[in-house]
Amino acid sequence: MSLNILIYAEDVIANAERHGNADAVRAAYPRGLHAAIADAFAGCGHTVRFSSLEDLDATLTPESLDAADVLYWWGHARHGDVPDGAAALVAEKVQAGLGFVALHSAHLAKPFKLLMGTSCTLGWRCGESERVWVAAPYHPIASGVPPYFDLPDEEMYGEPFDIPSPEDTVFIGWFSGGEVFRSGLTYKRGWGKVFYFQPGHEEYPVYCHPTVRLILRNAALWAAPAARRAETACPNMPPDRPA
Amino acid sequence: MSLNILIYAEDVIANAERHGNADAVRAAYPRGLHAAIADAFAGCGHTVRFSSLEDLDATLTPESLDAADVLYWWGHARHGDVPDGAAALVAEKVQAGLGFVALHSAHLAKPFKLLMGTSCTLGWRCGESERVWVAAPYHPIASGVPPYFDLPDEEMYGEPFDIPSPEDTVFIGWFSGGEVFRSGLTYKRGWGKVFYFQPGHEEYPVYCHPTVRLILRNAALWAAPAARRAETACPNMPPDRPA
Amino acid sequence: MSLNILIYAEDVIANAERHGNADAVRAAYPRGLHAAIADAFAGCGHTVRFSSLEDLDATLTPESLDAADVLYWWGHARHGDVPDGAAALVAEKVQAGLGFVALHSAHLAKPFKLLMGTSCTLGWRCGESERVWVAAPYHPIASGVPPYFDLPDEEMYGEPFDIPSPEDTVFIGWFSGGEVFRSGLTYKRGWGKVFYFQPGHEEYPVYCHPTVRLILRNAALWAAPAARRAETACPNMPPDRPA
Amino acid sequence: MSLNILIYAEDVIANAERHGNADAVRAAYPRGLHAAIADAFAGCGHTVRFSSLEDLDATLTPESLDAADVLYWWGHARHGDVPDGAAALVAEKVQAGLGFVALHSAHLAKPFKLLMGTSCTLGWRCGESERVWVAAPYHPIASGVPPYFDLPDEEMYGEPFDIPSPEDTVFIGWFSGGEVFRSGLTYKRGWGKVFYFQPGHEEYPVYCHPTVRLILRNAALWAAPAARRAETACPNMPPDRPA
Repeated sequence: MSLNILIYAEDVIANAERHGNADAVRAAYPRGLHAAIADAFAGCGHTVRFSSLEDLDATLTPESLDAADVLYWWGHARHGDVPDGAAALVAEKVQAGLGFVALHSAHLAKPFKLLMGTSCTLGWRCGESERVWVAAPYHPIASGVPPYFDLPDEEMYGEPFDIPSPEDTVFIGWFSGGEVFRSGLTYKRGWGKVFYFQPGHEEYPVYCHPTVRLILRNAALWAAPAARRAETACPNMPPDRPA
Repeated sequence: MSLNILIYAEDVIANAERHGNADAVRAAYPRGLHAAIADAFAGCGHTVRFSSLEDLDATLTPESLDAADVLYWWGHARHGDVPDGAAALVAEKVQAGLGFVALHSAHLAKPFKLLMGTSCTLGWRCGESERVWVAAPYHPIASGVPPYFDLPDEEMYGEPFDIPSPEDTVFIGWFSGGEVFRSGLTYKRGWGKVFYFQPGHEEYPVYCHPTVRLILRNAALWAAPAARRAETACPNMPPDRPA
Repeated sequence: MSLNILIYAEDVIANAERHGNADAVRAAYPRGLHAAIADAFAGCGHTVRFSSLEDLDATLTPESLDAADVLYWWGHARHGDVPDGAAALVAEKVQAGLGFVALHSAHLAKPFKLLMGTSCTLGWRCGESERVWVAAPYHPIASGVPPYFDLPDEEMYGEPFDIPSPEDTVFIGWFSGGEVFRSGLTYKRGWGKVFYFQPGHEEYPVYCHPTVRLILRNAALWAAPAARRAETACPNMPPDRPA
Repeated sequence: MSLNILIYAEDVIANAERHGNADAVRAAYPRGLHAAIADAFAGCGHTVRFSSLEDLDATLTPESLDAADVLYWWGHARHGDVPDGAAALVAEKVQAGLGFVALHSAHLAKPFKLLMGTSCTLGWRCGESERVWVAAPYHPIASGVPPYFDLPDEEMYGEPFDIPSPEDTVFIGWFSGGEVFRSGLTYKRGWGKVFYFQPGHEEYPVYCHPTVRLILRNAALWAAPAARRAETACPNMPPDRPA
């Protein structure tokens, strides 16, 4: 299956230059997050396109979203710079079938919050190791993933995670500091499938981990739509009384 | 249990005067919808307050929503006139514990859509009789409700209803024209409970039906919060390493 | 995708001879239910095998269930003649990945009840027409199914249907006598997917309806396992303390 | 609210004498598990009754289960000695409204498995410390529970836990050995509410921990039925055609 993947990510190096942690981010992702996430799909035969805050008007359009099968979204410092209209457009296209993979700090991204209907808050702390467990070994997103894998460095995200009860809890994270987190969660929203995946702080090369890359690939196959909703409206239904 | 009930409703008589069906609406609800819905709580010992588009700045405030246990919402022609900020405030307060009962055409109300994360579309046609079935007789909202009850006149709302899979499907409606609809659905969103209830077209005195009134009363007891969320933020969690 | 389909069905003609309605059943299903259900897969390239109460020891074995991708189950008068051990074996194999499609009166079949954990009771009455609505048009089982289709004769099954809240409510039935029913429901149980589908009383040729046949075909593709559980036990986990 | 609590537990001291760990169990629970669990309800005004394998015929009857509001179940070494009929009776009474709290190793208890429909397997290892996190702070079972609490000694139960997706994930456990577990899960089964709670290995005085006792008390209030199902059958529904 050849898919059209669209990756939205902030420019984490530019963010880091403002924030003062540019060395760490550049070491982890010298070419930025777009490239690191795209590398997960190397050899898959998918077409990968990119979207950034800087080119949102050209890259996050009704046409680009209709052409995409799955949208990966990584945002953090600049959630607020995504226009409300763009966020609403993404949510609408997901509801019509576009797969949506919300990565790490995208738990507070505008389109993700529009799709969840909750505050999506959580607790956090920088600098712990994480062990990620498969809680749903039957799930296609966990296909080929070992029972657990370790990320030597990751930002801690901790419960309570204020989200709706998921369809499946695919992964649960264990942190060295004593916290736990539902690290992989699936939802349906209309025609669209949504996967939230917690790993991916920009200071650590998490998206270079082979198991994380496998999960990103599995998520594309799972979230790709079998069909799209034709229109989004409330039809007046003509009468057709049963005989 | 004495509750604080807040009822938001459009001025359906004014709407109808613009729309040309004022006679029907006035016949069904001569004192408007606020009064008709409030009558469901007569003798309950609850405090009932009202909110309208015309006084939204004064009646739909952080303070009024914190003071309320359950918010009933009836909107239709003027969904678009509810400011985005007011809709976001309602959603936030529901996520913090405020009970929310979305009535009839409120399936497209801004706060309801924010809470659901889907398009909330459905099919419709005016003028059918409806039979409402209890599908979840164990549910507190169905307490005392007979296995089914008939509404001689109701707007038809038909499947597919584009909403997330509910926690419970409490009611399912049968329409004389051959349609069906999930007429009573429950959700949790953070600390808040949400109930969608389909009956209540403004041209028919549906909210005067004793069983509909019983359901409105049951919904208040079910949706009233046991507790509120204290704050809505992502705390930085101090380290507390297990021994 | 070429699948291995296993169809368990009672001998409805023999049942009917005891029950006194053999003429109706013979008219609807002159070759019995096995053949009528199998005809839905004509031209699909699947391999179809059969299982009956009379040959259960040979046809419903660990090996036959491991070899099958999806098990269709139609039972009614003789639920009680399925040995507890056979029912437990089916449930265990479904939990390990075998797809399971429970047809019509199989709502009270032993393996279905073991998988649901509820009483699975419902109301019923013979002889109504049914209109079946798609409530989840996004679902693969509804692929190609029109918004609704009519069955001129069907046994009425009515709410309340005492089952757990489903993952998806794919179909809802409308009956001419005024009843409604959740006619198509999906569940996950371990590695296995379960679909309950209400149409199919043995006195009416429901399984010859082209849309019903399409749904049976869609259900096979949806329920076929991507993977099987290797073993079913509680492993003692060796220690592997994170660094 | 004064409730009728029924506590089923194995004689863990007798078990331990056979198993060779009697000293540890006697130190943790010198009066056995019945008494330790019952102590959680001291001062609540509830009536507490007991049931054991040794007196099952007298204590686990239709009458005793109808008289109880909530049944707590602790079993481990002797799951197999509970007759199938007794397990089916418990499941049936839960489906009719009896609250059911499955404790620790009761994940493999016959009635719990009948209610879940899955294998309920998990991984395990003796001897770790556990930190239990509240994942659903809005849930009545978590009322008054701090964000987390530590159990210095507990048997490790680890994911994957093969259960249906729960209504709410109330607690998640972190283990010092690097594992995680969904430690508190809720379900509805017909009229009955089910809570699974992981802590409670018989060698450690877990049920003497004040927070664990608070959770046991909260669970009783949550699981107590508002109403019972009158009968469990499939009624033939008389025709009542809508006008």
